[in-house]
Amino acid sequence: MSLLVIGSVAFDALETPFGKTDKIVGGAASYISLSSSYFVKPVNLVAVVGGDFLKSDIELFQEHGVDTAGLQIKENEKSFFWSGRYFNDMNSRETLVTELNVLGDFDPIIPEAYQNCEYLMLGNLAPQVQRTVIERLQNRPKLIVMDTMNFWMDIAYDELIKTIALVDVLSINDEEARQLSGEYSLVKAARKIMAMGPKYLIIKKGEHGALLFGQNEIFYAPALPLEDVFDPTGAGDTFAGGFIGYLAKAGDVSFNNMKSAVIHGSAMASFCVEKFGTERLVNLSQEEIDARVQLFADLVRF
Amino acid sequence: MSLLVIGSVAFDALETPFGKTDKIVGGAASYISLSSSYFVKPVNLVAVVGGDFLKSDIELFQEHGVDTAGLQIKENEKSFFWSGRYFNDMNSRETLVTELNVLGDFDPIIPEAYQNCEYLMLGNLAPQVQRTVIERLQNRPKLIVMDTMNFWMDIAYDELIKTIALVDVLSINDEEARQLSGEYSLVKAARKIMAMGPKYLIIKKGEHGALLFGQNEIFYAPALPLEDVFDPTGAGDTFAGGFIGYLAKAGDVSFNNMKSAVIHGSAMASFCVEKFGTERLVNLSQEEIDARVQLFADLVRF
Repeated sequence: MSLLVIGSVAFDALETPFGKTDKIVGGAASYISLSSSYFVKPVNLVAVVGGDFLKSDIELFQEHGVDTAGLQIKENEKSFFWSGRYFNDMNSRETLVTELNVLGDFDPIIPEAYQNCEYLMLGNLAPQVQRTVIERLQNRPKLIVMDTMNFWMDIAYDELIKTIALVDVLSINDEEARQLSGEYSLVKAARKIMAMGPKYLIIKKGEHGALLFGQNEIFYAPALPLEDVFDPTGAGDTFAGGFIGYLAKAGDVSFNNMKSAVIHGSAMASFCVEKFGTERLVNLSQEEIDARVQLFADLVRF
Repeated sequence: MSLLVIGSVAFDALETPFGKTDKIVGGAASYISLSSSYFVKPVNLVAVVGGDFLKSDIELFQEHGVDTAGLQIKENEKSFFWSGRYFNDMNSRETLVTELNVLGDFDPIIPEAYQNCEYLMLGNLAPQVQRTVIERLQNRPKLIVMDTMNFWMDIAYDELIKTIALVDVLSINDEEARQLSGEYSLVKAARKIMAMGPKYLIIKKGEHGALLFGQNEIFYAPALPLEDVFDPTGAGDTFAGGFIGYLAKAGDVSFNNMKSAVIHGSAMASFCVEKFGTERLVNLSQEEIDARVQLFADLVRF
């Protein structure tokens, strides 16, 4: 049941064809913990913010069942900040500003109460920091899921490979799977990546859905065709949060249950992109989630 | 039951990262009629070739239950010829040669025995030629499916719109749906395109599967993740052939049955890309098709 989430909690400033925001709450761990909180509570969070992070935003996490005992607050520093602009097709974006700030020397301290977690979600971060978390846990969790991105393939390849070798499920997008494996065919890419350590691989394909690979099994989860994608930021993190939250709730890490977890993650991601940032994620009802999962089921039933 | 197929029967010369071919049988109607022949016989074919087309290739069609009474042979002219080269990702290609030859002034003559067809498949051709076929049928078929491509959107837009208005199902790819509608969102694109006439729209997304839109319904058919795509030529036509062949066999044009038809079309397309040209399509067994359809079912079941 117990879920530990690590990743960035940050400020984002976003610009899409539909509008722009000032600094709003962002960061992989924000999306992951809010998303997973609809499945399991508490969500134990390990992250770092600066003195500029609002108390009311921390309270918002707490109201969703996120335990923030592991959220370090560096009063005299500033929170990680990222600013980006999406192009018209919403599939590509440019980074305008990246300020590492507190994330630059983030030391992930695990509160004693967070030890013995059964489910560990490593949100996108420097792979050596992700690995430190695994090393600091006294017992290996039942399931470790790791999300990462091409940035670390470019600048920290060796560290990344060492960390990937330790996890059960790796979650990356299709371009990243191709980059990491050097294979264009996703079937071949999956085989190579699973040989690096993970028993399961999730390849996220955005508007084209997601693939879940096991040793001898493949599952294809569609994406819901949407009227508009308002803001894709955090969709992959929200997916990961729904995925591991569903597994932690069920306490079942079979491939069969992972299929349902992928669908629930996809459903959560489909909400995320409907509004800016985490806006949609903080106001969801169980009925809305159930109805959305049913839409996914109907979408592929024949 | 009775199915009429119109489109090009031609020679292709193909180059992919896996090899290259001399002139082999190609053309939309070749793929469509071979694919649909696994579901319904006879497939009545209306097309035109030159004197250079091999008698043995025509016999191959006949052996698959394709009636070639409507295949015009212009002894002193040459068959339509297209040559293309695929790039490494197999998703983009360049045209090396296009020789219209007999297709330049193709007059689609419908043999009397082909009248009263219930299912009409308009393979990719000049839209005015596709429309002529509809006009020459004494009774409107129960279902008209039309495939087309961006080329006609560029050079024959008005003719295309007039023809689209007359059909029940339009089949195009995602980029073409965006071009035709001026909408990036496929949901919005589908709504606009269906307002042009078709009651149903199929959006083909290649390795990402296909979407079937009805007035208030959406179905998402996955594509089978493949080890290798050997040659994508004709995959869309093969899909269309499987789609209409399945419908014609069942005699059921409900949305529900169209979902199964999309899966069967996708399964046929997944065979097509395994070898060059029509090579894989002329050597399929019912058992192979059933097993492949089962793979598609397993792929999305959760």
